[in-house]
Amino acid sequence: MSDDSHVHCGTQTSRSNDLAELREAIAQAVRDVKAKTPLAQSFTNFVTINLVANAQLAAGGTAAMSFLPDDVIETAKIAGANYINVGTLLPFYKDALPTIAQRLNYLGKPWVLDPVAAGIGKTRTAILQSFKAAPPTVIRANASEVIALANMWGLLDADKTSRPAGVESVDEVDAAIEPAKLLAQFLAASAPQHKATVAVSGKVDLVTDGEHVYRLPGGSAMMAKITGAGCSLGGVTATYLAVAEPLIAALAASLLYDRAAEVAEAEAKGPGSFQVAFLDALWNVTAEQVASSEILAQ
Amino acid sequence: MSDDSHVHCGTQTSRSNDLAELREAIAQAVRDVKAKTPLAQSFTNFVTINLVANAQLAAGGTAAMSFLPDDVIETAKIAGANYINVGTLLPFYKDALPTIAQRLNYLGKPWVLDPVAAGIGKTRTAILQSFKAAPPTVIRANASEVIALANMWGLLDADKTSRPAGVESVDEVDAAIEPAKLLAQFLAASAPQHKATVAVSGKVDLVTDGEHVYRLPGGSAMMAKITGAGCSLGGVTATYLAVAEPLIAALAASLLYDRAAEVAEAEAKGPGSFQVAFLDALWNVTAEQVASSEILAQ
Amino acid sequence: MSDDSHVHCGTQTSRSNDLAELREAIAQAVRDVKAKTPLAQSFTNFVTINLVANAQLAAGGTAAMSFLPDDVIETAKIAGANYINVGTLLPFYKDALPTIAQRLNYLGKPWVLDPVAAGIGKTRTAILQSFKAAPPTVIRANASEVIALANMWGLLDADKTSRPAGVESVDEVDAAIEPAKLLAQFLAASAPQHKATVAVSGKVDLVTDGEHVYRLPGGSAMMAKITGAGCSLGGVTATYLAVAEPLIAALAASLLYDRAAEVAEAEAKGPGSFQVAFLDALWNVTAEQVASSEILAQ
Repeated sequence: MSDDSHVHCGTQTSRSNDLAELREAIAQAVRDVKAKTPLAQSFTNFVTINLVANAQLAAGGTAAMSFLPDDVIETAKIAGANYINVGTLLPFYKDALPTIAQRLNYLGKPWVLDPVAAGIGKTRTAILQSFKAAPPTVIRANASEVIALANMWGLLDADKTSRPAGVESVDEVDAAIEPAKLLAQFLAASAPQHKATVAVSGKVDLVTDGEHVYRLPGGSAMMAKITGAGCSLGGVTATYLAVAEPLIAALAASLLYDRAAEVAEAEAKGPGSFQVAFLDALWNVTAEQVASSEILAQ
Repeated sequence: MSDDSHVHCGTQTSRSNDLAELREAIAQAVRDVKAKTPLAQSFTNFVTINLVANAQLAAGGTAAMSFLPDDVIETAKIAGANYINVGTLLPFYKDALPTIAQRLNYLGKPWVLDPVAAGIGKTRTAILQSFKAAPPTVIRANASEVIALANMWGLLDADKTSRPAGVESVDEVDAAIEPAKLLAQFLAASAPQHKATVAVSGKVDLVTDGEHVYRLPGGSAMMAKITGAGCSLGGVTATYLAVAEPLIAALAASLLYDRAAEVAEAEAKGPGSFQVAFLDALWNVTAEQVASSEILAQ
Repeated sequence: MSDDSHVHCGTQTSRSNDLAELREAIAQAVRDVKAKTPLAQSFTNFVTINLVANAQLAAGGTAAMSFLPDDVIETAKIAGANYINVGTLLPFYKDALPTIAQRLNYLGKPWVLDPVAAGIGKTRTAILQSFKAAPPTVIRANASEVIALANMWGLLDADKTSRPAGVESVDEVDAAIEPAKLLAQFLAASAPQHKATVAVSGKVDLVTDGEHVYRLPGGSAMMAKITGAGCSLGGVTATYLAVAEPLIAALAASLLYDRAAEVAEAEAKGPGSFQVAFLDALWNVTAEQVASSEILAQ
C-alpha cells in the first residue's frame, strides 16, 4: 500500500515531503484547473494535436496551439505554461524551436518537453541538443526517449545508451530510472525555484524530481492502442503546470491519466470507444479519485 | 417568441426581409446541401482540420483541404465556396494567404474567414490586414476577434478596442454588435450582389448582414469543451455558402450547430461522447428543425 | 458466390494462384499483424493523419509519421513498410517527396502511394510524375485518381483521360480497370520480386496485381461520410505490406475495411458514432471473418 511507503525528507523544507502533503497538493492542482481553466500553449505534432487540445479541455484547462516563434512567444506571455513536442518536424523547426526554448527560458515561462522519437534524425537531434542550454521544467517521455535524451546531453556513461525504435519505447521504465533522475537534477539546476520533474510513461509510470522516485501503478494497456496517449499526457501536464509546481503537475497528470484509462477500459469495446470514454473520464474523474491513487514512493 | 419579432424591411427588395421568408430560405439551404453535397474548400488550422471536414460531411457537403496557393485556386474553381482559418500559421502563409484572398476575390469566389486569435502575432496581423483589400463574404468569429479585426481595419474608434486572449473570447457578444455591423457593411461594399454577413459566436450567437441583427439563443456550454466548435462552424458556413446567400448561410450553419449541440448535450457523458453525438446530430437534425429555431430579430 | 469464381494460374508458381490459397494468405497476414505489431511509417496529409495512425493501431500495427526526408529515411530502416499520401501539400514537399521516393526505392523499402487529388495543382503533378522513376509497391486510390495517374505516367491512350474533381471520384470503378492493370504491371516491373498491386476504392472495391482482377463487394456508404476512409485504408495497407506481399496486403486491408464498415453501419446513429464503431470493428473483426469474405475473381 502506498500509505506505508516512507518518503525521505528533502533538504528544502518547502517541498511537499510526505505522501499526505503530496496528495493534498495533487487534489488542489486538479481542483484549480477545473476552477481556473488555465491556458496551456502547445507546439506539438500534427498526428495528435487534436487530442492534445481535447485532453487539455477535458481536464478543465484551455488550449492554444502555435508554430511561428512570434505567435508562440506572444501567447506564452498570457499562458500559464507551455508544451513542446518534437513529433512531426518541419524544416523551419530547426531554427524556430531553439529560438522558442531560449525565449521561454529568458522569460521564465515553465514548459514541458516531449522528446518524441529522440535519437531519430539529424534535425531532431540538433533541436533536442539545443534544449540543453534552455531546458524545460518537465520532461514527459517513454523510457527509450529519456535514455536517448540523457545520453544526448552527456549525462550518462556511454554504455547506458539505448537505440531508438520509432516512437515506441523499446526499454522498460526501470532502465530509465537513473537517466530520469539525472535529467531531473539537470533541469532543476536552471529551473525556477530549482524544481523540475521527469515523468517516464510505461506499464508502471515513474515520476522523479531528481531526488524522490514515485511509481504509479495501474492504467490500461489500451492506451497504447490509441495514438497520442503520451503526447496528450504531456499537454495535460502543461495544463497542471500552469497551477502547480513541476512534481505535483507531473503526478496529477499521470494519475488522472491512469484513473481515466481504467474507467475507459471498463466501458470500451475497442480503441474507438476507448478514446471517447477516455475523454469523458478525464472530464468526470474527481480530484479526490486522482489524489487517493496508489503512489509507490522510494 | 421569435415569430413576434418585427423585422424592418431593407431597401433591397430581393432580401429575405421577414422571418417567414428567412426561415424558408434557411430550410431550403439545409435541404440543398443534403441534396447537392456541395464542395467547400478549406485552408484551416491543424488542430481542428479533421473536425472541420467531418462536420462539413455530416452536414451533407463534401470537403477538400489545401495549403499551396496553386492547389487552393485550382480547387476553388470547382468548389461552391471556400473557408480560410488563420489558426496555426506556418511561415509561408504570410505570402500565400494574401495571394489566395486576392485570387478568390478576383475570381468572384465567395469565402468565409475565421480570424482566429486576431491580434496575436505580427504575421497574423499582417495577413489579416491584407484581407482588407480582398475581403471575405462572411466572417465567423468570437466577440474579441470581431472587435480586433474591425479595429485592425480602421473601422472602429480607438477606444473600442479589446485585447486578445489566446483563442478564447474575453468579450461578450453584445460588445461586438457595432463592430460586427461595421465589418458586415464593409464586406458588403465589395461582395457579390453587395451581400455579406458577420456571425459572432458566444453564449447567444449573433448574426448580422450590416443592417439587421439576429440573435440565436440556445446551444450548449459543452461546445467550449471540445476544440474546433468555432472552426468547424466556419467550415459548415462555407458549405451552406455554396448553395445560399451569406446571411442565410450564416444563419443556417449557426442554427444547425445550436440544435445539434442541444441534442448532443442531452446524450453526452463528457466531451468525448459529446463530440460523437454532435457529429451524429449534425447528420440527423432536419431542415425543419433548423428553420423553426428561435430567432430574435432586431 | 466467390468460391465458384475461377482464377487463372499465373506464370509464377510462387503466386497464391487460387482463392483458397489467397484466403489462407489473407488470414495469415491479419494474424501476423496482430501478433507482430509491425511498424508502418506514413508521410500523409494533415486532415486525416490521426485516423491513419489510429486505424493502423486498431488493425494491430504501430504507427510513426514523419515529413523531413532525414526522419523518413531513418525511420524507414526500422519500419516494415511505408505510406505516402499527397493530400495537403506544403511547399517543401516538392523536393522532399521525390527524394524520399528515390531513397525508399534505392533501399528496397516497399511503400504504398495514395495519389489524392491527382491532377490538381502543378506541384502535385510534378511530385506524382517524379514517382514514375521510383514507383511504389502498391497504389490505393479512387477511380479518378487511378485514371489520372496512369495518364500522367503515359500509360493510357489520350482518349481515356478523366477530369479530376477535388478529392471525390467522378468515375466508377469499372472505368479504372484497365488503367489499374496497366499501373500494376508498370509497378511490378521495378518492384521486389516483380510483385505490385493497385487497389481502387469505390462502391465495389477492385484490386489487381496487373494480371488478375478481384472485386470485393460490400462495405458501407457511410464510409464516404467520414473523412479519411480512403487515406486510412492506404495506411492499413502499408501495415499489412509489412508482413505480406502486395496483393495479399491490399486484399487483406480492403476486406478488413469492408467488414468493419458493415459492423459499424449496423451500430451507428450517424457519422460520429460510425467512426467510433469502425475503429472498434477494425480491432474486433477476426482474421477468419476477413479471409472468408466474398471475393469475385476474374
